[in-house]
Amino acid sequence: MTIGTLVLLRHGESEWNALNLFTGWVDVHLTEKGMGEAKRAGELLVEHGVTPDILYTSLLRRAITTAHVALDAADRLWIPVVRDWRLNERHYGALQGKNKAQVKAEYGDDQFMMWRRSYDTPPPPIESGTEYSQDSDPRYAHLSDAPLTECLLDVVKRFIPYFEETIAKDLKAGKTVLVAAHGNSLRALVKHLDGISDADIAQLNIPTGIPLVYEFDNDDLTPRKIGGTYLDPDAAAAGAAAVAAQGK
Amino acid sequence: MTIGTLVLLRHGESEWNALNLFTGWVDVHLTEKGMGEAKRAGELLVEHGVTPDILYTSLLRRAITTAHVALDAADRLWIPVVRDWRLNERHYGALQGKNKAQVKAEYGDDQFMMWRRSYDTPPPPIESGTEYSQDSDPRYAHLSDAPLTECLLDVVKRFIPYFEETIAKDLKAGKTVLVAAHGNSLRALVKHLDGISDADIAQLNIPTGIPLVYEFDNDDLTPRKIGGTYLDPDAAAAGAAAVAAQGK
Repeated sequence: MTIGTLVLLRHGESEWNALNLFTGWVDVHLTEKGMGEAKRAGELLVEHGVTPDILYTSLLRRAITTAHVALDAADRLWIPVVRDWRLNERHYGALQGKNKAQVKAEYGDDQFMMWRRSYDTPPPPIESGTEYSQDSDPRYAHLSDAPLTECLLDVVKRFIPYFEETIAKDLKAGKTVLVAAHGNSLRALVKHLDGISDADIAQLNIPTGIPLVYEFDNDDLTPRKIGGTYLDPDAAAAGAAAVAAQGK
Repeated sequence: MTIGTLVLLRHGESEWNALNLFTGWVDVHLTEKGMGEAKRAGELLVEHGVTPDILYTSLLRRAITTAHVALDAADRLWIPVVRDWRLNERHYGALQGKNKAQVKAEYGDDQFMMWRRSYDTPPPPIESGTEYSQDSDPRYAHLSDAPLTECLLDVVKRFIPYFEETIAKDLKAGKTVLVAAHGNSLRALVKHLDGISDADIAQLNIPTGIPLVYEFDNDDLTPRKIGGTYLDPDAAAAGAAAVAAQGK
């Protein structure tokens, strides 16, 4: 049995990426640039002969729309789709809706980087009734313990067990799986796949809109190449540097 | 148990609707007008308080994209999605890609209307290797007996058993189900729901992009109102008349 191929795709630029705001679970739209990135992602899939058999997305429209536009460009809109909150972006707690540069200026570099990149310390929880809480959001109504803030460890704890139960099984069945998700949910998955330490994951940044392909030789799902392969390596390097520079 | 609500949505205008070509299984894009119809459909859902819990689509991008745009406008992009070929448009056989007015001029009114509206006589089958055959289309590769032409009866035979096994069960479980599909697959379903005779179904036309809502009182799924309710009745009447006039 040939093991399948995993394709990770961070959504294209969102309105709040462009405004340099902490987004988390706030359901913002893509920008025109983000739509263009998504289309280019689909073209890259075609150019490299990568043909997804199934799509997993978060419940957030920036990932859902990125996948829609990319798969339309790749002529694969018709593949099965699974959506799950466990692919969502990290919940940014009380920081949601705040400007990254202002938070940095107000709280200082150390606190800012702690909130952005600490593995196990979440920001303060979002308060019920505030503008960007998910109090009345029907998509989370079935969750008895929806998070009010998360650190990357929390994302690992919710996403990786789900990955093992669903996406990993599809890979072991030989499928090419497209995962359209977010900077931090994909960092959690890459940490798991590549065996990155809790300390080192702070340095890993995932650019928007560039497919990252992992291939595997056997069903323990150890990547053939640690770090995977970006289908546009130059754009990926520039994009990752831009993510690292956010708030500067 | 309250029975759920069924919302039928024919895709917005496609490139081949605009060109007056027989489309069938050819996977054409929406026009800008069609994108606008899809957005309006989502706004109508919001205005009428109709909130889909699950989406069913065909495997054709004009239905998939219509649903995407409508659900984006309705802030329900995150609901579960099921795609199945049995919701596809009627396969138009050897007529696929041909201009409706030219076919009518060449073959005459009677033959033209027979091909369009006969319940049980399909057009000639499409030939393998011709431009619009689905020979090498991966979305149908798993089907051992994919149709090469269909009459409406063939659509009834493939779609209604699927409806009973899937969509009907969701309705009986109280869900609001959005079905984004095509003129003839929706005619097949409406025939079934409303108990329309094989003869009378020829007169039924479904307009593009206007949600048609069916409610039910009990789980035999007899519609509360025969014919359902279009969320924009005036536009629906104008749209149905336009469909009836095609080829003129």
